[in-house]
Amino acid sequence: MTASVLVRQGELRTEQRPVPTPGPGEVLVRITSVGVCGSDTHYFAEGRIGSFIVDSPLVLGHEPAGVIASLGAGVSDRSVGQRVSLEPGIPDPLSEQSLAGCYNLDPGVRFFATPPIDGVFCEYAIHPAAFCHPVPDSISDDGAAMLEPLSVALAARSAGKIQIGDAVLVAGAGPIGLLISKVAQLAGATVTLSDVRAERLAVAEKYGATHTFTATDPPPVVPEFDVFIDASGAERAILSGLERLAPRGRAVLVGMGADTVALPVPLLQGRELSITGTFRYANTWPTAIALAASGQVDLDGLVTSVHGLDDVQSALLAGSNLGALKAMVHP
Amino acid sequence: MTASVLVRQGELRTEQRPVPTPGPGEVLVRITSVGVCGSDTHYFAEGRIGSFIVDSPLVLGHEPAGVIASLGAGVSDRSVGQRVSLEPGIPDPLSEQSLAGCYNLDPGVRFFATPPIDGVFCEYAIHPAAFCHPVPDSISDDGAAMLEPLSVALAARSAGKIQIGDAVLVAGAGPIGLLISKVAQLAGATVTLSDVRAERLAVAEKYGATHTFTATDPPPVVPEFDVFIDASGAERAILSGLERLAPRGRAVLVGMGADTVALPVPLLQGRELSITGTFRYANTWPTAIALAASGQVDLDGLVTSVHGLDDVQSALLAGSNLGALKAMVHP
Amino acid sequence: MTASVLVRQGELRTEQRPVPTPGPGEVLVRITSVGVCGSDTHYFAEGRIGSFIVDSPLVLGHEPAGVIASLGAGVSDRSVGQRVSLEPGIPDPLSEQSLAGCYNLDPGVRFFATPPIDGVFCEYAIHPAAFCHPVPDSISDDGAAMLEPLSVALAARSAGKIQIGDAVLVAGAGPIGLLISKVAQLAGATVTLSDVRAERLAVAEKYGATHTFTATDPPPVVPEFDVFIDASGAERAILSGLERLAPRGRAVLVGMGADTVALPVPLLQGRELSITGTFRYANTWPTAIALAASGQVDLDGLVTSVHGLDDVQSALLAGSNLGALKAMVHP
Amino acid sequence: MTASVLVRQGELRTEQRPVPTPGPGEVLVRITSVGVCGSDTHYFAEGRIGSFIVDSPLVLGHEPAGVIASLGAGVSDRSVGQRVSLEPGIPDPLSEQSLAGCYNLDPGVRFFATPPIDGVFCEYAIHPAAFCHPVPDSISDDGAAMLEPLSVALAARSAGKIQIGDAVLVAGAGPIGLLISKVAQLAGATVTLSDVRAERLAVAEKYGATHTFTATDPPPVVPEFDVFIDASGAERAILSGLERLAPRGRAVLVGMGADTVALPVPLLQGRELSITGTFRYANTWPTAIALAASGQVDLDGLVTSVHGLDDVQSALLAGSNLGALKAMVHP
Repeated sequence: MTASVLVRQGELRTEQRPVPTPGPGEVLVRITSVGVCGSDTHYFAEGRIGSFIVDSPLVLGHEPAGVIASLGAGVSDRSVGQRVSLEPGIPDPLSEQSLAGCYNLDPGVRFFATPPIDGVFCEYAIHPAAFCHPVPDSISDDGAAMLEPLSVALAARSAGKIQIGDAVLVAGAGPIGLLISKVAQLAGATVTLSDVRAERLAVAEKYGATHTFTATDPPPVVPEFDVFIDASGAERAILSGLERLAPRGRAVLVGMGADTVALPVPLLQGRELSITGTFRYANTWPTAIALAASGQVDLDGLVTSVHGLDDVQSALLAGSNLGALKAMVHP
Repeated sequence: MTASVLVRQGELRTEQRPVPTPGPGEVLVRITSVGVCGSDTHYFAEGRIGSFIVDSPLVLGHEPAGVIASLGAGVSDRSVGQRVSLEPGIPDPLSEQSLAGCYNLDPGVRFFATPPIDGVFCEYAIHPAAFCHPVPDSISDDGAAMLEPLSVALAARSAGKIQIGDAVLVAGAGPIGLLISKVAQLAGATVTLSDVRAERLAVAEKYGATHTFTATDPPPVVPEFDVFIDASGAERAILSGLERLAPRGRAVLVGMGADTVALPVPLLQGRELSITGTFRYANTWPTAIALAASGQVDLDGLVTSVHGLDDVQSALLAGSNLGALKAMVHP
Repeated sequence: MTASVLVRQGELRTEQRPVPTPGPGEVLVRITSVGVCGSDTHYFAEGRIGSFIVDSPLVLGHEPAGVIASLGAGVSDRSVGQRVSLEPGIPDPLSEQSLAGCYNLDPGVRFFATPPIDGVFCEYAIHPAAFCHPVPDSISDDGAAMLEPLSVALAARSAGKIQIGDAVLVAGAGPIGLLISKVAQLAGATVTLSDVRAERLAVAEKYGATHTFTATDPPPVVPEFDVFIDASGAERAILSGLERLAPRGRAVLVGMGADTVALPVPLLQGRELSITGTFRYANTWPTAIALAASGQVDLDGLVTSVHGLDDVQSALLAGSNLGALKAMVHP
Repeated sequence: MTASVLVRQGELRTEQRPVPTPGPGEVLVRITSVGVCGSDTHYFAEGRIGSFIVDSPLVLGHEPAGVIASLGAGVSDRSVGQRVSLEPGIPDPLSEQSLAGCYNLDPGVRFFATPPIDGVFCEYAIHPAAFCHPVPDSISDDGAAMLEPLSVALAARSAGKIQIGDAVLVAGAGPIGLLISKVAQLAGATVTLSDVRAERLAVAEKYGATHTFTATDPPPVVPEFDVFIDASGAERAILSGLERLAPRGRAVLVGMGADTVALPVPLLQGRELSITGTFRYANTWPTAIALAASGQVDLDGLVTSVHGLDDVQSALLAGSNLGALKAMVHP
């Protein structure tokens, strides 16, 4: 099969590799669509993310959808030809964290495209059947792939305990920020979305935001929000968001970027704010599938470019194009 | 009556003032004991705390106990001669925050010894009957006064959702840290207490800590705590505590001091930690009374000096003495 | 002013009474619309509800909207001419339950049309300003009155912890059941609504339900719901709903009627179900106003008849008419 | 090896069976102590519990402790000779319920001594290493076995959200009720324990209860408890407990016996009570081990008789002896 391999920082190569064979409880999936995430671009451009270093060839891509091509031993609840969305992390299901319902926090989790685990910019991948979620035909291949970023949004919603009637501020109008905005609206919240780039706010209303502002020209600070979700990773956005939280307000830091933020302790105490962060997701696919299948969330509307396996570099760099939201790779 | 008045930064004066008259729903209390808090000392030494400035004469002291001397109109559930502990903040009970059960966060709350509201280093004070909590004889006058810091500890316990079986780390072994340690133990947690001053840890075991360490010589970082409570206000302690939290760990910032803390965002996200702060307390007195009355918490054991109204300056400065924990003023 | 008075079981009389004068913190409201509730009809028909007995003349009606006619002393945040929705219960705001945020559970609450407190089938009423919630012009008078049943629905949503992605079953398609269905949908749930009367399900889709069934011909029992809300008060509906809850499912009993229900303990234990009930509401008006003002909830669509003060008996009996949902009284 | 087998209702036989061989991820355990549970006695006496019918020979016993005798393939975190407490249920760790943290509710769970799965009244058993929890030497063999009933108590504590300061009523002073009482006390609650048999209350104080009453002569009903835990399974006790709950009180039904309880709906609603039930436990062993190892819970103090494998019938019938609490089988 063909795979797009990051051989070293900044250098991709298309290789032929053997099609893998599924083990017990696993399935072989023919990959049909993979979303490009900022972390893929970061590995390509920098060769590392924090302590994760690309020191041997690595296949990128961790938001895959596909069709089951064969079944490993003991798999009885999946069938060949079934269209599936792959939940990328594989935890030890008997670890302390997994048994407590937080399998995303299992330190032993193996995750696509995180060194040294290969990702899915390739034609075939094996994966545990339990983490290959069947999708109905009302979800496209791209939509099935984008259940992953939708899961990020659902995890943010859950961490922020967003309820009907909440006033929610979301910073950052990229794909994740837009999906968080949409999920918050569907949960009954009133959503305000901000971004430093005004043009990104053009689709805000379609994704659930009834108010927007350009972060370079923010409105006066009023502590009026129940929840603040940062999808920007920018310290300035985070601090501005915290100031706008009402007493007992909840902040969730989803965006990556800032290594530290100068947390204003008296503000945290005086309003009894709470701050948390999310790491991927757990138990989100059923709801993500329901929201996409019913049309409540328009995932296809986020796609701004489609690329082949021989064009992964363009896909990885597409994010910087004006108006770009989500690039997809179709192996 | 006699009152100790802070006339300006660093200058106290004993004055004679008229005994106030209780209005409807209020009682007049003859003050028997008042605990000295770090904030009293701070107002004395600096003339301000943040935006609260002592720009006219102010009576300090906000941890009072006393005996009801007379009843205002309409007070039927209190009686003259009753020993009471005064919960110091007076909220608007019909404010949005009060109706939601967070009356401590009502922006209109009037609080003893917070400019321009006078405190209780004086012989008599009026207060709403509902916030004058009757105490049994098994609680001393000093103990009744110290239900206030015990309430701070209970609020920290609640914010940290400390449960039976939790491993809790408390930073700072002053009166608040010791009481948090004790409350955490009584809630079924295993408690580790740290302080930069080794001698402060001498009473740790009496106040519930089974493990201690000197913060200048901390043990290797192991992410083993479910909850971290900071009662030190020191950025270094806070950062050290966060690093020791296990996945889904909760941190509560109680201590005042640090204006900002360089929050490590990847740590917050990678372990899905949550951080919150507490602002005083709400609905804590009934439990505080029960814990003190039963002897489960030894409040008297914290008293290291007692002072008269003419000796408030010594009381305010006693905290820096070797071995000092809690100074009390007996009007 | 004119008032419709229940002089004894089954007998209403129109009387002239003096217009009351607002005390401190209160306002005088000219009543424009009052919704008729099943409890009003029950007092009229039976002369009692449980231990509440109509043993002296009583004005019924407890879902009022109106216009502020005058202000009592100290009211600064309301103005004459302001359109308001009246939250009917008046708690002691310093009671234990009120301070804990559950003012609806204060045993001392005084509630319109609950003997011996008069209700609002009359031209004027006085009420605490804090419980007279200003409404925008996008909410009609009838809509402002029906913020009360909408609040019942919001309290049910909150008690059931309904979240985005939940599958919710609602039993009973009267006004309360329909509003619960709508609120659950707005909170992101998928809603199934049942009723013994098939014709009541005709408006189900408009009020958020995507699936319906006639309770006399229920589908096979599948434990597929996360939440069950009973708005029927019928034991059979309650037992049927419990059986359909998935593990960790939550049931909320809102409807009145059944005195006891034969709770199946092994089912409760084997699936770790939880069951709770709601008593009115607390802190719901801000969200209710937002949902009605934005048009997300169509309250006017529930009105099926309008009556004058001299026609209150017809209003009280309208509920048994075919197709009737909500009768309103316009004083 | 020797096994005690229930060949049919009321008839036990000692048999020789081959020692089983551990598969991948499993260990072989030499059983040292097994607690006798009421369900064992019920299977012996009645031949069934609900829909679980003993229609082929069955080994009873599901509260085992032992010593690891050999390791299956891939087990690296256990060692031969290690003393362990066996958590009896084996879930599918990839089921929906397991991934959500409620592995006890996985419908596919296989549980010792639940037909047709054999239990542990025998010399050896195989079990997944992950569910064989190592215990320190400060816990005896009997104590290691009784981590199972202690886990039932911890699950009840968790379901009742018992916190420091809560007033808790426990009905039923058998081993489970006593352990619930003790756990509630250790969680900071004030505990009242009741039983129909006054003699059972003799050890109440040792197990954390500061108040007791004989259920045949109950005190006047005062709604003063925050939490009610039923460990009796008796409808009368459950109804009496519900009446004593304060507003927002929580009830947890742990005891088995009553098939239905006549739930008083107006009481549930008027005080917004909540009721839930527990089914075994999940994620409790670490805390159970800590409580037993530190001596906070005296498990050995519950043992009132010890029996060999040839004396299982006496063990199963010991519960009806005066003063009996817990019978243990030592294979």
